[in-house]
Amino acid sequence: MNEPTIREIREASERIRPFVHCTPVLTCSTLNRLCKAEIFFKCENFQKAGAFKIRGATNAVFALGEKEASQGVATHSSGNHAAALALAASWRGIKAYVVMPGNAPRIKRDAVANYGAEITFCKPTLEAREEGLARILDLTGATFIHPYNDYRVISGQGTAALELCKEIPDLDIIMTPVGGGGLLSGTAIAVSTISPQTRIIAAEPERADDAYRSLQAGRLLPANNPNTIADGLRTSLGDFTFPIIMRHVKDIFTVSEEGIVKAMRYIWERMKIIVEPSAAVPLGALLTKRQECSGKKLGIILSGGNVDLANLPWISHSE
Amino acid sequence: MNEPTIREIREASERIRPFVHCTPVLTCSTLNRLCKAEIFFKCENFQKAGAFKIRGATNAVFALGEKEASQGVATHSSGNHAAALALAASWRGIKAYVVMPGNAPRIKRDAVANYGAEITFCKPTLEAREEGLARILDLTGATFIHPYNDYRVISGQGTAALELCKEIPDLDIIMTPVGGGGLLSGTAIAVSTISPQTRIIAAEPERADDAYRSLQAGRLLPANNPNTIADGLRTSLGDFTFPIIMRHVKDIFTVSEEGIVKAMRYIWERMKIIVEPSAAVPLGALLTKRQECSGKKLGIILSGGNVDLANLPWISHSE
Repeated sequence: MNEPTIREIREASERIRPFVHCTPVLTCSTLNRLCKAEIFFKCENFQKAGAFKIRGATNAVFALGEKEASQGVATHSSGNHAAALALAASWRGIKAYVVMPGNAPRIKRDAVANYGAEITFCKPTLEAREEGLARILDLTGATFIHPYNDYRVISGQGTAALELCKEIPDLDIIMTPVGGGGLLSGTAIAVSTISPQTRIIAAEPERADDAYRSLQAGRLLPANNPNTIADGLRTSLGDFTFPIIMRHVKDIFTVSEEGIVKAMRYIWERMKIIVEPSAAVPLGALLTKRQECSGKKLGIILSGGNVDLANLPWISHSE
Repeated sequence: MNEPTIREIREASERIRPFVHCTPVLTCSTLNRLCKAEIFFKCENFQKAGAFKIRGATNAVFALGEKEASQGVATHSSGNHAAALALAASWRGIKAYVVMPGNAPRIKRDAVANYGAEITFCKPTLEAREEGLARILDLTGATFIHPYNDYRVISGQGTAALELCKEIPDLDIIMTPVGGGGLLSGTAIAVSTISPQTRIIAAEPERADDAYRSLQAGRLLPANNPNTIADGLRTSLGDFTFPIIMRHVKDIFTVSEEGIVKAMRYIWERMKIIVEPSAAVPLGALLTKRQECSGKKLGIILSGGNVDLANLPWISHSE
């Protein structure tokens, strides 16, 4: 399979349209004032299964041939992709097998179970995930749908930026968080074609800055079991996503844990919407590097809203 | 001044249009399944100053003559109306004086101060509020804008239902929370004229059920310093709002404190939006009386989203 182009992203958009939301774009005058910019938030936190991940998962699941599909799909994931794949599989009426780290947030584990997937828990390392997955693929003949290192998934994730650029056609900048790079590389392919004047900026936790370091070094430098509150961004770039990112993305901004929590709280307090820590990473980075975006028209993809409401980062607990 | 009609509500809608948001209407398939109904949520939690109150306050402030306006406006309020009046006054460039109970949530006190109002704190009783206000009116010559017992305010609050009925024209039921009755009476006037087949249902905390009792008794029975988490609904109906409600509203559903918190959490978790406890009261009541609305097309006005994020009802604290 070749690297996707805007054509595959448009096909993905058609394929997933009956299932996923075209999410709303919100603005916030207080945040605009604070950043001295005009910011358009693409609300993937309102997306089915609570995150953009359903776009890639749905595209991958519905792109399968009948025979392949009948044996089910499988993945390893820190959570949102797993829930998305489980839901997409249920729409197609096929089985989903999920290998998850035991330390994934409870809300994400529950979601995967509720959508009817079969879960196998493993240690929170890439090795343990891959081992667990290999066993399952062997047993079931299911098709592996990687959370991001998969062209069908990348094409699906690119549909969020496609919608955003259609609604707000003259963005100076588009920002996404980067973990494994599925959202970022899909966004990069879409935006570099349909809105070539738009600068693509990624944002990453300081504590999981493998994409930043990889871009600097010009080669893939994996993250080493990073410890960040942005649980969706703990994964490393893959060999499918990295070349796309290398080609289209000039800047990756990093942000501290404190900056992530501050941005998350701003979004909750000012926009009255719930986003997970990973989704707050671009705004956090923007607040740190405010001068870079001053006077600009910015799109930010709010990647997801799956948070354990009983366990918020700004509240100390007695439990 | 005569009781407002749909004409005054339409005038209010024109008057406030340059200042307030036409808020979005959201749906949630999970909540629809749970309630076996089709629910349309009018998101006044996304409104300017975080609540529908800005509609009535803006209408009242901009309806004043030049001379009257120049001496400022004043009110007593548990919070959202005060913030709204402060903001509306700042838009017109006039002073706002606010008398607030000392136990109002900090986020609401801060908002009033941030919008530039002059605050006087008082005890959390109606008497203390009225005494404090009388002193201020005496000193300043400001115009009193009551939080709900004011026809200009009632007309302004009615504009939310006007927008909702325009967007979703064939509702079987519309639900609002009821505290002082400004939102409910404005909604009742609007809906009974433009959508007479729509049943108007109010929802109220069991612990602040003065509207329920008043409707049963056929006369105003004030609440007695009620203790409910729905801080926006602790006030009693007024002699302007009660007759309108008597005429148009057949049902007031009540809901327990537990039911309010449960509904609030559903909205946060499933819809990924932030609403304050008062705004969750209609859904709480609906979840309690599910059979009443089964199979129906319902509009619910989510009245506001001003919550102290460091103090959530489902989290126990160590502070």
